[in-house]
Amino acid sequence: MTRMNLETIFAPVQNEMALVTESLKRVADVDVPQFAEVIRQALGGLGKGVRPALTLLSGKSRDYNLEHLIPMATAVELLHTASLVHDDTIDRSPIRRGLPTLHALLGDNAAIMAGDYLFAKSAELAAMPGNLRVVRLFARTLMALAKGELEETLTLYDWHQTREDYFRRIDGKTAALFSMAAESGAILSRSPEEEIQALKTYGTNLGLAFQVVDDLLDFTGDEKTMGKPVGSDLLNGVLTLPAFLYLEQCPDGNLIRRGFESKGQGPELGRAIAEIRASGIIQECFAIAQDLVRKAQAAVRPLPESEAKESLLALADYILERKK
Amino acid sequence: MTRMNLETIFAPVQNEMALVTESLKRVADVDVPQFAEVIRQALGGLGKGVRPALTLLSGKSRDYNLEHLIPMATAVELLHTASLVHDDTIDRSPIRRGLPTLHALLGDNAAIMAGDYLFAKSAELAAMPGNLRVVRLFARTLMALAKGELEETLTLYDWHQTREDYFRRIDGKTAALFSMAAESGAILSRSPEEEIQALKTYGTNLGLAFQVVDDLLDFTGDEKTMGKPVGSDLLNGVLTLPAFLYLEQCPDGNLIRRGFESKGQGPELGRAIAEIRASGIIQECFAIAQDLVRKAQAAVRPLPESEAKESLLALADYILERKK
Repeated sequence: MTRMNLETIFAPVQNEMALVTESLKRVADVDVPQFAEVIRQALGGLGKGVRPALTLLSGKSRDYNLEHLIPMATAVELLHTASLVHDDTIDRSPIRRGLPTLHALLGDNAAIMAGDYLFAKSAELAAMPGNLRVVRLFARTLMALAKGELEETLTLYDWHQTREDYFRRIDGKTAALFSMAAESGAILSRSPEEEIQALKTYGTNLGLAFQVVDDLLDFTGDEKTMGKPVGSDLLNGVLTLPAFLYLEQCPDGNLIRRGFESKGQGPELGRAIAEIRASGIIQECFAIAQDLVRKAQAAVRPLPESEAKESLLALADYILERKK
Repeated sequence: MTRMNLETIFAPVQNEMALVTESLKRVADVDVPQFAEVIRQALGGLGKGVRPALTLLSGKSRDYNLEHLIPMATAVELLHTASLVHDDTIDRSPIRRGLPTLHALLGDNAAIMAGDYLFAKSAELAAMPGNLRVVRLFARTLMALAKGELEETLTLYDWHQTREDYFRRIDGKTAALFSMAAESGAILSRSPEEEIQALKTYGTNLGLAFQVVDDLLDFTGDEKTMGKPVGSDLLNGVLTLPAFLYLEQCPDGNLIRRGFESKGQGPELGRAIAEIRASGIIQECFAIAQDLVRKAQAAVRPLPESEAKESLLALADYILERKK
């Protein structure tokens, strides 16, 4: 199978993606200049646009009403941006998408409030199509996101967790938004209910795969490409899938347990990272991500043939190819 | 005129207020025990309930549908609680309503995410009545709130501000929520449009008066009752109405300007606080609050006679009587 690049994958919705970018820029059109500047900085380095593209592609084959889908796709990307602003504040990250973070530029306080504003603005955009089902979906997604992040914060350096805890956490912090992106596109384009459910399942599995790959790259990537130390999650007390597999395979007295007990002060976590990198765990995790991608693709395969459907199938493959 | 206490004012909606309290407690019914505990702590010391009472009182005389009004009143109080959680994190406050703040108990990170969760949960509750006008009002209110707080953060120690900047700021950070509380109650109980507008105007002016009194108490209250130093706003670089009146009356080379230039390191701000306390400014500010209360009362006076209307009139008087 030939792999497509993102540009080719987004081709069926290329013009609309430009409208979403315009619509995102307009979020900074506010009355107080100082405030506008903060919002512009928060929007700063726009991402690859996978989430808004999901909304557009999911609506493309049905009643493709841009008056509804552009605000919704903008809401999806903005919700993602808002959560990044709060994540960066929590993680004290200096850089995001090659630009200084809002937290680094303006401090915690402005970053917390700017994130709140962007959450609110995304809620306003999600309410624009006037569809209550989508409004409720949006609110539940925001809850899932905050809950997933909070659970991660509450379980730092806690090795009494299971693989199920991990999947529940990433379902909240990542997959819920992918799922909403696809489901809302399907709802707003008046797709039949089984198609809505299919796209929702696609989004969830795509999101889970995305996060598994992300967590894998934290172990396999090099420091230069990733912009952070190899194994930074584990070093900061966050258990991700590779670490869970390692814990399952060495249940007693292993390095992670000892490393967490000393809050990463000793050499144990560094050694665990090296062991994981050298083990079959990396391949096992990749196989789990592949399996999730196959589930995502299986969900959309029954949909009528279309360019957009091909893009959704290709996007799932693309997730596995990510290098950073 | 005899002053009523809050219990008497809330009497027409007393039973429903108990339902709101129950509904708030149920917000902590979530699957992960550790997470439930965080939410319980965030809800901790419930406030006086002025905001949810506004929603109930505003709906009482019309189609008083508790299936809509209880979730909405809960959403109103929860939105307030969420914003307090973020405020306390920003202000590094150790105590709120006599209990340790979430930020003090669990650190910034959990407090940021718990606040996000409560914003989302309040959005879900606001969507429950299934009224899009209310959903949009809710989103705009959350935007106004975050924008108001952000503007305060961005203008710390900035003496190039005017009284208009102050009123725009407190309109966002306080009055918008009071206004939404009243307006949403009126909308959901199918009040005639002019009554909705009247209650909205009432809420806005009540909220402005509330914040002016709050800012006044920061100058006139004693440290023991308020739990913070006299003039703490000014000492922390926040200009409020008494300080604006002082700036207007002494436009050049005054103490605030010099105090802000040294970020409050010198004795100037303490001296400015003493001068303000000893001046006629306190009475002038109180007169401004009285004027706002009269505007609020004038807005609801044309409404048909009812117990709820009497309570709204009395609540406005009560705002002026607050001691902390």
